[in-house]
Amino acid sequence: MSNKIKVLVVGYGNIGRGIIQAISEYPDMDMVGIVTRNPARVQAENATGIPILDSNDRSWEKSDADVAILCGGSKEDLPLQGPIFARSFNTVCSFDTHGRIDNWQDEEGRLQHGYLHNMDTVASANGKVATICQGWDPGIFSIMRAYFKACMGNRDAFGFYGLEESGGLSMGHSDALRRVKGVKDARQYTHAIPETIKAVRSGNLKKAPTKGDMHWRECFVVLKEGADSNYVHHTILDMPDYFAGMRTQVHFVSQEELNDKHSQMCHDGIVLGVAPHGVMEYRNTWSSNPLATAYILLAYARATARLAAKGESGAFTPLDIAPVLLLEGEGRHLHII
Amino acid sequence: MSNKIKVLVVGYGNIGRGIIQAISEYPDMDMVGIVTRNPARVQAENATGIPILDSNDRSWEKSDADVAILCGGSKEDLPLQGPIFARSFNTVCSFDTHGRIDNWQDEEGRLQHGYLHNMDTVASANGKVATICQGWDPGIFSIMRAYFKACMGNRDAFGFYGLEESGGLSMGHSDALRRVKGVKDARQYTHAIPETIKAVRSGNLKKAPTKGDMHWRECFVVLKEGADSNYVHHTILDMPDYFAGMRTQVHFVSQEELNDKHSQMCHDGIVLGVAPHGVMEYRNTWSSNPLATAYILLAYARATARLAAKGESGAFTPLDIAPVLLLEGEGRHLHII
Repeated sequence: MSNKIKVLVVGYGNIGRGIIQAISEYPDMDMVGIVTRNPARVQAENATGIPILDSNDRSWEKSDADVAILCGGSKEDLPLQGPIFARSFNTVCSFDTHGRIDNWQDEEGRLQHGYLHNMDTVASANGKVATICQGWDPGIFSIMRAYFKACMGNRDAFGFYGLEESGGLSMGHSDALRRVKGVKDARQYTHAIPETIKAVRSGNLKKAPTKGDMHWRECFVVLKEGADSNYVHHTILDMPDYFAGMRTQVHFVSQEELNDKHSQMCHDGIVLGVAPHGVMEYRNTWSSNPLATAYILLAYARATARLAAKGESGAFTPLDIAPVLLLEGEGRHLHII
Repeated sequence: MSNKIKVLVVGYGNIGRGIIQAISEYPDMDMVGIVTRNPARVQAENATGIPILDSNDRSWEKSDADVAILCGGSKEDLPLQGPIFARSFNTVCSFDTHGRIDNWQDEEGRLQHGYLHNMDTVASANGKVATICQGWDPGIFSIMRAYFKACMGNRDAFGFYGLEESGGLSMGHSDALRRVKGVKDARQYTHAIPETIKAVRSGNLKKAPTKGDMHWRECFVVLKEGADSNYVHHTILDMPDYFAGMRTQVHFVSQEELNDKHSQMCHDGIVLGVAPHGVMEYRNTWSSNPLATAYILLAYARATARLAAKGESGAFTPLDIAPVLLLEGEGRHLHII
């Protein structure tokens, strides 16, 4: 009998593909299935022999996986998919809508439950661990903000992404664009605003920068035939949590141009903590944003299985998990201290 | 009654002074005493009104502190001081002799207990938490090595310090120099070897770099009158865990020259994790190394008090502590995720 951690991948997009590519470097983990709403497409593409399960017929409920890695989008997939899968499995996901993690008020002022509450409720009731928000922001960036704040006398640390001139591909925002009526395909590149990075680094911030001070967003959109470009444009600019309140440029392009000029998936970012006695700084540079997210999800799938094996249940955020749980093998890992 | 975390500072050197300077930025913590072997000296220097306790008369044992921050040197102070204080208090320290954390073999091949074992044994037996190795290396650097390794498919991450041409002041190594017979005063600057950083960054390492590939050490030493410079020189070069096996330069200088030219305490360093899909990188730049260590110790003193309040006991390393425990106030701190 194998002692490996059995992993179920839910969703076969860029992140799901990334996990299949990365898992060979996590030798304590085995992939036991791919859950998809389109088994025929995955069958055609996937030659690894991993069992493919149809999300519609619920055969996935019988999987003996230790952890399900949820690879859906944060806007429409995870809010539904997360609580369904957390009934049957320990889960890990990279839910990344910052404004919907905690409980929030809708436009009529009513309190709505956030993703944390929903996942915590279902996972706790079913004795499962739900590890949420484990990408690079939220995720590794959140962790850096916490360490830097704690070690810098309670000063806030700030994260920026898209440092290169071309910006960095945001998967969540690209996904949100593709859900707009009339959009056939789209990519969103996030750009950091260098003057604000400079101001943070100087230590002379007058007040905390707003979202709009820190980044602007550039959208490349392919319309469906007959779509109303004016409607699409305004729907994008007004989209709450994604584009509203931020400088946003929308370019309408052909599918050919999108494929030719905007297919790179690299991304980068920094977290900066500044105090009079010093600077703490984290930077990552990814040649593939979804592949980087896949690696992080695998590390946290390992931690999720460990937490479950210890009898824990409920939702865990990036801040709740001690680093030792991410490493292969039990023990204190003193050699890397 | 105050709910603040009551902190006892043990040792009034650079780090102890740093804690007194930094604690105002940790408003949930109060300093309740300074333990020193030289109360008269501290009394003369310290105008803050914090009670001063003589380490020789054991009056410190009656302190109602929640956490004792041990600020002694790793070479001779902490191995004795740590287990004594861990009998009576939850403790946090920045023990930094990497080769003495785990159990180790002495020159005759006998197994010797490491600092972790010794602190864990005493703290567990007395129901105390002993948080060890919480500086920046070990400490923050250890944490980065763990995150990077886990999120980079088990590839080792490497830490370098002393990136500037002048190198960076190592407090532990300076302290070790000052313990050599015949040495009146000394400073040790660590220099990273840039070619090795470049090789790590390229992702084309043939094999893991050795300690000697990564750094060299520069010592500025003031001799006592009549001291044997030849003896001092060789004792330094042969000192295990500190200088043996590394390129080391020793300069004998006057006290005036040391004070004039080698009094800066800045230091910096990076941790690098490299994989085909990207780079994770952490950097810190400190204008004062001891002050930076003081801030980190205060953050971990907070975590130590929290762990103790939860009923935990025994030794904890940087890898064992979830980031959320470092932040001021209870709760999940969702706003920084």
